[in-house]
Amino acid sequence: MQRVESEIARLIGEIEYDEVTRLFSTLSGGKRLRAKLILKIADTNERAPLLAAIVELIHGASLLHDDVIDEATLRRGTASVNATEGSKTAVMLGDILYSKAFSELVSFDRNIAKIIASSVTALSKGEMMDVKMAHTFNTDEEKYLEMLYLKTATLIEAAAHSAALLAGKDPLSHALYGRNLGLSFQIIDDILDIVSDAATLGKPAMNDFVEGKCTLPYIYLYRALNDDEKEKLITMHAKDLDEKQSAWIREKMQEHKAIEKSFELAQRLSNEAMTAVKNDEQLINVLQTMIKRSY
Amino acid sequence: MQRVESEIARLIGEIEYDEVTRLFSTLSGGKRLRAKLILKIADTNERAPLLAAIVELIHGASLLHDDVIDEATLRRGTASVNATEGSKTAVMLGDILYSKAFSELVSFDRNIAKIIASSVTALSKGEMMDVKMAHTFNTDEEKYLEMLYLKTATLIEAAAHSAALLAGKDPLSHALYGRNLGLSFQIIDDILDIVSDAATLGKPAMNDFVEGKCTLPYIYLYRALNDDEKEKLITMHAKDLDEKQSAWIREKMQEHKAIEKSFELAQRLSNEAMTAVKNDEQLINVLQTMIKRSY
Repeated sequence: MQRVESEIARLIGEIEYDEVTRLFSTLSGGKRLRAKLILKIADTNERAPLLAAIVELIHGASLLHDDVIDEATLRRGTASVNATEGSKTAVMLGDILYSKAFSELVSFDRNIAKIIASSVTALSKGEMMDVKMAHTFNTDEEKYLEMLYLKTATLIEAAAHSAALLAGKDPLSHALYGRNLGLSFQIIDDILDIVSDAATLGKPAMNDFVEGKCTLPYIYLYRALNDDEKEKLITMHAKDLDEKQSAWIREKMQEHKAIEKSFELAQRLSNEAMTAVKNDEQLINVLQTMIKRSY
Repeated sequence: MQRVESEIARLIGEIEYDEVTRLFSTLSGGKRLRAKLILKIADTNERAPLLAAIVELIHGASLLHDDVIDEATLRRGTASVNATEGSKTAVMLGDILYSKAFSELVSFDRNIAKIIASSVTALSKGEMMDVKMAHTFNTDEEKYLEMLYLKTATLIEAAAHSAALLAGKDPLSHALYGRNLGLSFQIIDDILDIVSDAATLGKPAMNDFVEGKCTLPYIYLYRALNDDEKEKLITMHAKDLDEKQSAWIREKMQEHKAIEKSFELAQRLSNEAMTAVKNDEQLINVLQTMIKRSY
């Protein structure tokens, strides 16, 4: 990963603007999941660290814009750029990172460049769907999973897919692995928003629902409730929850196994991912670590 | 130009999201200067309309984000997307257009893709400089022109440069033409902000200075003033101007020929551009039309 960090620093330096270097240095790099995935798949290729750096710049840019759009004040436990430097700066910095990433991408094989660039269209489209869907109480599981795929899984899928192309490995099985890894990851994130406490999350618990986002456990819960309870749940949507209300939601979720059902889907997707890359122990480890992080 | 509009419509359709199609249809296409330039330079190449469409998507995305950053409520005489649909939607739509444009760009020659993608990094960097420079009263002409080059001229330069590559014409002279066309265009725009009335502009006159932007005429004016007057001008910076104040600025600009000097620079740059493409009557016409639009 040291080579990825050096590549990221080199790309930021090439922008030749002190303000960008300063702002970028305030960002937490996060887990670098996408970069690690690319290195694990294409470890023998000398251009893998550059591809990983490009994908991390894209991911960083998408988080900057996401936080503006969600008005999030926290990112990875610290204040977001929009909170400390203003939304405008976050938009501009995101644009700079996106375009720098695209400029570097053109040095790769055309298929690789196309896969990564298209995934950014998908993730921006997913972000727009996410915002629109939060305006109403969405109970459509398929629609929810499509949004999740676009918003979270496409870039991970593209990272795995393009790394496989770079390494001469099977592209489709790696793409499927990435796609399912991304989906499971996000479903588990959605579960953690409900079952973890604020201290662990670094933000208020059940924040998704307060923001209007009906994640999978809420969709499963809604289906299982009787008409009066359905009504009650809808009235709580996209508003601040008091202790009694959150307790009621958690209790009903327990009663109807809404969390378990969500977790089962995450696990099914993970199993499919593991089957797709069955001989690759490293990739199986990545998945298992992720699935275990909460339980 | 009909082929460019068809290509734009096809690209927007390929995003496969009704909301994007609807939002995009509310945007005014503007003068399509960059597209026209590409068609004039590379008219014999069948891929010119696609390249032109890509550059127009990029330009559209940059305007969406610019208006968010400048909190502009008007664009091309009508309400901006951030004004009618909110800043978040404008950010998301801009991201979708940028990434769709980049996805299509990879089908072109690597040099062309690199030139266009790099110009987007330059223009985003220019936008950030513009915002930062508006916080103080900038009197540094060189710094101002660098920002102008990055923010406005680089994409026009890249359009002319890449179109020349596509058509097998001399890339450097066309790049120089595009660069100088972009710079003259923006200097004239800055002059129009001072000399035109609000009705013609579709926004209040002298809006640039109210927003903190010290354009070329203000820089030339500042240099020519005595110390007391310099002080007076600085106190007016980045505030609403009353009638008396705007009249004073205009009068002093007239006295010290600040507008003429700015116009002379625009004309010098235009002449250089014309020399660069000396045999191309169509490109000379583009420039002359532009220079004449205000006088």
